[in-house]
Amino acid sequence: MIIILKSGVTDAQIKHVIERVESLGLRAHLSCGTHRTIIGVIGDKSQLQPARFQAIPGVADVISVLPSYKLASLDAHPEPSIVNVKGVKIGGGNLAMIAGPCAVESAERMDAIAKSVRASGANILRGGAFKPRTSPYAYQGMGEEGLKILRETGDKHGLPVVTEVMDPRRVEMVERYADMIQIGARNMQNFVLLTEVGSTKKPVLLKRGMSATIVDLLMSAEYILSQGNPDVVLCERGVKGFDPATRNLFDVAAVPACKVLSHLPIIVDPSHATGRPDLIGPCALAGVAAGADGVHIEVHNCPEEAMSDGPQALLPEQYQQLAGQIRALAALLGKTISPAAGCKS
Amino acid sequence: MIIILKSGVTDAQIKHVIERVESLGLRAHLSCGTHRTIIGVIGDKSQLQPARFQAIPGVADVISVLPSYKLASLDAHPEPSIVNVKGVKIGGGNLAMIAGPCAVESAERMDAIAKSVRASGANILRGGAFKPRTSPYAYQGMGEEGLKILRETGDKHGLPVVTEVMDPRRVEMVERYADMIQIGARNMQNFVLLTEVGSTKKPVLLKRGMSATIVDLLMSAEYILSQGNPDVVLCERGVKGFDPATRNLFDVAAVPACKVLSHLPIIVDPSHATGRPDLIGPCALAGVAAGADGVHIEVHNCPEEAMSDGPQALLPEQYQQLAGQIRALAALLGKTISPAAGCKS
Amino acid sequence: MIIILKSGVTDAQIKHVIERVESLGLRAHLSCGTHRTIIGVIGDKSQLQPARFQAIPGVADVISVLPSYKLASLDAHPEPSIVNVKGVKIGGGNLAMIAGPCAVESAERMDAIAKSVRASGANILRGGAFKPRTSPYAYQGMGEEGLKILRETGDKHGLPVVTEVMDPRRVEMVERYADMIQIGARNMQNFVLLTEVGSTKKPVLLKRGMSATIVDLLMSAEYILSQGNPDVVLCERGVKGFDPATRNLFDVAAVPACKVLSHLPIIVDPSHATGRPDLIGPCALAGVAAGADGVHIEVHNCPEEAMSDGPQALLPEQYQQLAGQIRALAALLGKTISPAAGCKS
Amino acid sequence: MIIILKSGVTDAQIKHVIERVESLGLRAHLSCGTHRTIIGVIGDKSQLQPARFQAIPGVADVISVLPSYKLASLDAHPEPSIVNVKGVKIGGGNLAMIAGPCAVESAERMDAIAKSVRASGANILRGGAFKPRTSPYAYQGMGEEGLKILRETGDKHGLPVVTEVMDPRRVEMVERYADMIQIGARNMQNFVLLTEVGSTKKPVLLKRGMSATIVDLLMSAEYILSQGNPDVVLCERGVKGFDPATRNLFDVAAVPACKVLSHLPIIVDPSHATGRPDLIGPCALAGVAAGADGVHIEVHNCPEEAMSDGPQALLPEQYQQLAGQIRALAALLGKTISPAAGCKS
Repeated sequence: MIIILKSGVTDAQIKHVIERVESLGLRAHLSCGTHRTIIGVIGDKSQLQPARFQAIPGVADVISVLPSYKLASLDAHPEPSIVNVKGVKIGGGNLAMIAGPCAVESAERMDAIAKSVRASGANILRGGAFKPRTSPYAYQGMGEEGLKILRETGDKHGLPVVTEVMDPRRVEMVERYADMIQIGARNMQNFVLLTEVGSTKKPVLLKRGMSATIVDLLMSAEYILSQGNPDVVLCERGVKGFDPATRNLFDVAAVPACKVLSHLPIIVDPSHATGRPDLIGPCALAGVAAGADGVHIEVHNCPEEAMSDGPQALLPEQYQQLAGQIRALAALLGKTISPAAGCKS
Repeated sequence: MIIILKSGVTDAQIKHVIERVESLGLRAHLSCGTHRTIIGVIGDKSQLQPARFQAIPGVADVISVLPSYKLASLDAHPEPSIVNVKGVKIGGGNLAMIAGPCAVESAERMDAIAKSVRASGANILRGGAFKPRTSPYAYQGMGEEGLKILRETGDKHGLPVVTEVMDPRRVEMVERYADMIQIGARNMQNFVLLTEVGSTKKPVLLKRGMSATIVDLLMSAEYILSQGNPDVVLCERGVKGFDPATRNLFDVAAVPACKVLSHLPIIVDPSHATGRPDLIGPCALAGVAAGADGVHIEVHNCPEEAMSDGPQALLPEQYQQLAGQIRALAALLGKTISPAAGCKS
Repeated sequence: MIIILKSGVTDAQIKHVIERVESLGLRAHLSCGTHRTIIGVIGDKSQLQPARFQAIPGVADVISVLPSYKLASLDAHPEPSIVNVKGVKIGGGNLAMIAGPCAVESAERMDAIAKSVRASGANILRGGAFKPRTSPYAYQGMGEEGLKILRETGDKHGLPVVTEVMDPRRVEMVERYADMIQIGARNMQNFVLLTEVGSTKKPVLLKRGMSATIVDLLMSAEYILSQGNPDVVLCERGVKGFDPATRNLFDVAAVPACKVLSHLPIIVDPSHATGRPDLIGPCALAGVAAGADGVHIEVHNCPEEAMSDGPQALLPEQYQQLAGQIRALAALLGKTISPAAGCKS
Repeated sequence: MIIILKSGVTDAQIKHVIERVESLGLRAHLSCGTHRTIIGVIGDKSQLQPARFQAIPGVADVISVLPSYKLASLDAHPEPSIVNVKGVKIGGGNLAMIAGPCAVESAERMDAIAKSVRASGANILRGGAFKPRTSPYAYQGMGEEGLKILRETGDKHGLPVVTEVMDPRRVEMVERYADMIQIGARNMQNFVLLTEVGSTKKPVLLKRGMSATIVDLLMSAEYILSQGNPDVVLCERGVKGFDPATRNLFDVAAVPACKVLSHLPIIVDPSHATGRPDLIGPCALAGVAAGADGVHIEVHNCPEEAMSDGPQALLPEQYQQLAGQIRALAALLGKTISPAAGCKS
């Protein structure tokens, strides 16, 4: 950690800063430049918290040279992690193909969509039973009934299932039905919920918040990892942007940027990132080309009747075509796509 | 609601759109321009959800001309609401002076800070017992012990108290101790938590999320109001910006922009908005000049020892000076500042 | 165009709006809803300027349903344009491989870089002679001497050359030396400069401004096109973002989003978009996968000695590897890469 | 300057970095921590350019501890500068009241507006003769004829005049007519234009670019100052934001943030910052409360007939009311408002 002192700092202030550093069991290393004095701080990682020093009189800035996350870092785990979702691998050269409707709406619809996306090559089924909606008057999801339908549909078609949890009181229930638990973008910094899913034994799909930096995302992953759950898959799903042309701004560079810092797999969600069916295909391919470990796409067989997010869903035939393009690209890049398990029905 | 059709829309598509509109009990009003055809949609508000129509083939765009929030709107309540926090009024010409440390750290420190801010003119005391921290390794707050200290300190100094809740399972506990419940920026779209505080009888201080639009903020207020709790105070605390000069970007225009749309009081939090003690004063005054109904400021008597956010706290003597400037400005603007209650000790 | 009136609009105000509409030779089409009154406005495109109507009393909003650009739109030119840069095609299935140093620094260095990038498959050479630098004290480029070196190097290696112009008084000079003229991001809304390059006969590479929407970009292209120069190539080079992890935020979705609106080719510049050599490769591939018509990459044989932007340049051997990956991806997507012309030396 | 080395840096790399530092006449000061090695670099300011060192192998990051601007910094000029526009003072406790239409449209209209704003207390008249318009088909201004009208109107009413220049070839012409030259937001990084106005003898009003940081703004001011023109007034006019509620995001904290770094006066432009007449007043007052040295407001006597930006103009009577509020606030804050000169007519 480096403490940069203000230009007019007094000797008494410098002395006080050094005393504060040493009082925490750290060592201070003074270095006087022509224009500025800096203090290098050395010692135990857990004590090196920049915020502690920023408020000391005479301090201009404090610069951390170590990442604040540990378990999520490449230092802790230099090889890419492979997360196993009931047999489907994500990461380390394995590409996940997650598809399904925004919300579980009925057993019949779920069955039809699952059948089609599996035939197109999807290996994980998604569907929301609890929906985070901006409006209290909008459709909020089927609840536990939706979880049951999702579970049965996944079992029937041999697809592991992923679904979102919003309430720490329902983590146990969702864990019972799902093979992978999703934390939505709006809850990426719901630390109570992160702590709760960190205590489960199911892999977690952690979506990046709309105004979260990559470091913020990794810190949220750290919350889960630090509870003992090692299976976190990150997801880039677009950040807040200024151009109304797209619903969010798809930050494709976040994919390789995360890989430089962390061993965790990262997938892309072009459905939420763009909010436009005509951009989902190009952005899905862009994500895979940039090194993503999976693609998460909303598919609906009748978007105009969808209870939520219909406008951004692909039709089954559109997904089929895109899935073929993704497979061709994955083959070029030497990626493997785990097959879905044998169909039970 | 207005549905704008694509330029090459077919007659069959137009017919289908109109059928969908009418199937929901709404009326369609067709209007053919030189370049574009539009359909005006008239009928029951609750059915007028744009997303339902955006996915219909031939539809280019759907424009809502009514706000999606109802209870929060000026239409529902044309006069500014006044929220009463144990005798301290906020809104409708009444200015709240909320001050205190980021976190409750000890009874002694809390007592000293409360004494000083009350002497300076603060009328509500703040202090966090549960802290949302980006890092799982950072200080997380004193928990219920902190709530007790806050309560006792407030009672001793005749100041109502506000504190944050992060966990829906602890809303009941926080409600027992606090006079006003705070929802932090990271939880502005934690709809589970909003619903829970909507069921309490305590006023809620709802902070704007870092990437939330003003409409998003009002929609979150609507979650609380729609549960039966009418006492919501909005808070502008900075949105995500691109300039590292400030921690967030203080959107002072949000204050008058909210007042055009809603009857709810709105206060400003220049501490979090700027993250810099040297900018808190100017931004606090800017907020009041723009029409804010209160100012929320972090004050600490030893920022360098603060367990969290020390660098952005004002010293008691800095707060005293600023409070004087705020009072002078409030007087110029004709605002009233409710006195704190008589000191019990 | 649709004029939405305020909820409490009076009959006199409605009458006045209609009079204003008709006074401009347009027709008004009144439509009264339960909650809102709207006026459809029909007539000559050039009169349909929303800003003219927004200030009329009683008007809540004015919505344009036609794009403000004409020549750049797909309506005007439904097939993708192919821009020919001295034999190298860009657009309509043809991929440009633009490479070279940020700045022309010397004939020797330029020669070495040109030789290597051509061997790796580049088909257009870049190099700046006039550099837009944030600081007046930073290196500003070699000026005309740099243009001469660039020209001679391009001729020697059979590569067309592209270089930036910043000053309308130097457009003629740059046109004399260059095969393609670049407008930098900071000048995307320098309308004087756009008008000037619109009068040349050379293709223009128009970079997207850091806070420009896609519509803003197309409007700037329209400035050039409306002067009679039909050869504009757009370039996505990252927009302003909030995450310091990357220099800018690479908006890869802008590539397919532009193609939905315009016939103009669009390329990507991952060097400026990310500012990090380790992200250039993944983002270049992402751009091509998303449908870009070319890739613009900075290459330097000794980044640490570069006069500007060294940190974001690839080494020649890194470019060679990436160019191979781009070619493989282009082949998969059925794209053609125009060969550079025969080497003259 | 501090060079932070990568965690796995080799001794040979460290040696090479130190050699590079010393080859530029600078001194290197090595400091080895537990986890990271850093090198402090000391020496002549002009050689301390971080970009030069970022590309050296083994370097993780380079941190500048000195501002890159010199003449604009408080170090160079510890007292606030006072810019004198033909007798009207801006800065150092003096508040400018700049008002007028977006564009000069006719002598009659200009005369009427000038008369009314002067009566309301404005002390500088604004009006554009060359308009930067997003669309090539929109009104582009009256040109030199507009400059003449502006000059004559200013003389008649005893108001100095400010107007925008967009073209370096017209700086001389604009200088002849205007008392203060405006650089618009879109040209804040048009370095050619900045250099040109730096050579004039007229004060410059430099508007902040839509995605410019405060440091970028000061660097652009430095371009002007370094040419020998000491009279620069900065202007905060809103940056790009994500909320469509306002045209731009008014960054009021930029006012005090600039004052911490620079001696240059800074004014606010709530007209462009918000784009909404109903928010101009509150934001103007917010700017003054935050310490702004002036307020720039667009006023038009018939907004619905304005050739540009009508919707964001105040009516003369609205300006009159606001000017009174600004004066009351200025009095409270101890600010002086220079009177306009004696009326010549």
